[in-house]
Amino acid sequence: MHDWIVPHGYRFAGHVSGLRSEPHRRDLALIVSDGPAAVAGVFTQNRVAAAPVQVCRTRVPRSDGHGIVVCSGNANACTGEQGLADARRMTVLAAEAVGCRPEQFLVASTGVIGRPLPMPILEVGIPAAAKRLDSSIPAVNDAAHAILTTDTCIKIASAKLEFSSSEARLLGFAKGAAMIGPNMATMLAFLMSDATVRPDDLQTILRHSVSRTFNCISVEGHMSTNDSVFLFANGKGTPLAGKDLEEFAAGVHTICAYLAKAIARDAEGAAHLVTIEVEGTRDDAEAIRIAKTIAESALVKCAIFGGDPNWGRFVSAAGYAGVPFEEKQLSLWLGDMLLYQHGAPLPFDPKAASNYLRHNREVNLRLRFTLGSGQCIFYTSDLTPEYIRLNADYTT
Amino acid sequence: MHDWIVPHGYRFAGHVSGLRSEPHRRDLALIVSDGPAAVAGVFTQNRVAAAPVQVCRTRVPRSDGHGIVVCSGNANACTGEQGLADARRMTVLAAEAVGCRPEQFLVASTGVIGRPLPMPILEVGIPAAAKRLDSSIPAVNDAAHAILTTDTCIKIASAKLEFSSSEARLLGFAKGAAMIGPNMATMLAFLMSDATVRPDDLQTILRHSVSRTFNCISVEGHMSTNDSVFLFANGKGTPLAGKDLEEFAAGVHTICAYLAKAIARDAEGAAHLVTIEVEGTRDDAEAIRIAKTIAESALVKCAIFGGDPNWGRFVSAAGYAGVPFEEKQLSLWLGDMLLYQHGAPLPFDPKAASNYLRHNREVNLRLRFTLGSGQCIFYTSDLTPEYIRLNADYTT
Repeated sequence: MHDWIVPHGYRFAGHVSGLRSEPHRRDLALIVSDGPAAVAGVFTQNRVAAAPVQVCRTRVPRSDGHGIVVCSGNANACTGEQGLADARRMTVLAAEAVGCRPEQFLVASTGVIGRPLPMPILEVGIPAAAKRLDSSIPAVNDAAHAILTTDTCIKIASAKLEFSSSEARLLGFAKGAAMIGPNMATMLAFLMSDATVRPDDLQTILRHSVSRTFNCISVEGHMSTNDSVFLFANGKGTPLAGKDLEEFAAGVHTICAYLAKAIARDAEGAAHLVTIEVEGTRDDAEAIRIAKTIAESALVKCAIFGGDPNWGRFVSAAGYAGVPFEEKQLSLWLGDMLLYQHGAPLPFDPKAASNYLRHNREVNLRLRFTLGSGQCIFYTSDLTPEYIRLNADYTT
Repeated sequence: MHDWIVPHGYRFAGHVSGLRSEPHRRDLALIVSDGPAAVAGVFTQNRVAAAPVQVCRTRVPRSDGHGIVVCSGNANACTGEQGLADARRMTVLAAEAVGCRPEQFLVASTGVIGRPLPMPILEVGIPAAAKRLDSSIPAVNDAAHAILTTDTCIKIASAKLEFSSSEARLLGFAKGAAMIGPNMATMLAFLMSDATVRPDDLQTILRHSVSRTFNCISVEGHMSTNDSVFLFANGKGTPLAGKDLEEFAAGVHTICAYLAKAIARDAEGAAHLVTIEVEGTRDDAEAIRIAKTIAESALVKCAIFGGDPNWGRFVSAAGYAGVPFEEKQLSLWLGDMLLYQHGAPLPFDPKAASNYLRHNREVNLRLRFTLGSGQCIFYTSDLTPEYIRLNADYTT
């Protein structure tokens, strides 16, 4: 078992309720703060928001949060009024089991869209999961497993934060795999701290970090209906301020960045983790727009999968990102090989460039513009026959 | 050989110049109007525009066009100043061979990005191609073959147009296959008529048709650097006006629509031609935005390839298209099966839905909104392991 730092005053459970067709697979997670916690949340911008997202949007930020209940295998999206009632019922069951009001609970789901939740399973499962709640590392491990779908591994990170006259702990875990094309929020990720932070500060910190971490990854650009990121802080002291609050924000950012990169690395069927660095745009938003457009091109992804240094695909994708530039304002590197400088191609060794792609699981593209000081680091995956296999027979 | 209607006063050639690695493959096309022709052109919106696109943008619309020279196998894109000089040189060679000024010639290229054009081959090839110019159907067939890349077949259509007191002929051909995600223009397509039309009318007619035909298809959404559509009209009579001009515009639209659908049908690796009908949005632009977002989702494409009626992917893609709507304003059909009505899922037979996808090469999605009278018909393909194979080793 790993050596994670678990914040004080939280308990976790991952339970096999029977939602999934695979036997013995954990599918129901509970995260509970023993005392009231400040809670921030960021959600998908998809117009088709899942029922749990619709329920939670009205519940954060708040100062008296108590927990999160999560099921995997069913997204509870496109499920109409029944779906909303089912999402609310999940929070009622969880709140009753731990002794708080339903509004103090958040709810998240991930899995197939358009199927009603099998509520009889959850009516039994949620109280049973609550009986397993524990503050131990194995309990954290169980909860992190219970939120996965086609992920091949859990994504989890923790840190100890040192403030001027106190300290706190921060733990986060996430799931990804596919339908990963976030905008303002992404996937499921849950961060818990025992620091004391005002809800509004918490919301600002989370929103800022998400925009540069979870929003800077893409698997295939399909924005999910269920993306939700929650940050809890259940400390009972004086709220953090000034440099201490900045320290806390830096800790949140580090954990979010780690989890986001882990989601890109474990993308469905992926054979490469691709880091796209864009710099020298007018602002950071332009850099992100260009990186995201490159990341979501199937032609770019196929070239990287095949070890084909067909760099015209990278440059041409940048060209339709909606950012004005002239070709002579752009240079391109693959790894440390400069292939295109100020709008003109350079001679290069195609064999060496191909070997770079073939022999590294983690590869780098860098685009440098001469327009300003904007920049970003963006993560994506390649496109493989395994991705197609996984997504050509998911529901049937 | 087909029974195409060839407009009067045009000659065609398709030549094996040696640009392509495959022996005996036609790679150089010439289209020549015997007299001066009105010419309209529409081009890619990619910021990284290929050299021939940069050259042609300054040459259309015009009243004294004479021809088009096209090479396949090399895109002449991202090739800097040398590329521009090479594109201009192609028009000089073609103009000299047929006896006109270089500005009267247009140029187009398609193939690998970032490689200098092998000009010695073209210095010999263009005059040799000009010697083969002919108005026969076999010559049209040769030219239509010479512009292809990974296309598996030529795309060609023709029509006879009847006006109040005259008639004209219209012929068009196109290439597609991949890097198909147009915006305002697409691919290579060339339309020739012997009608008499003012250049400005021609440009208006072409731009309008392109926006609803070539701009309503997508293979993987990667906008090319080389998209160009040209329309020639070399008639010598009184320019068409009123109902006759409308008749001509309708003919152009029919040919463009046929060629656009043919490009989507012959998309790289495609196993399905997918028609996406969207109706009831506030305007047509909203309908196109939604259809294009669905068409470009890898998850949607994989589901169709796999015969998986995972309709949540269609609805969730609509949700991130940037068009405001409420779920209850949306209903969805797969073929004639209503799966989702006013925001709620309906019971359906997954086996029948899967069989519909498995047993038809051409399949239909229909999304009906209750927002207005906007609509569109959009064509795309599925995503297959063959697409990945083709694009994982294209240059190396």
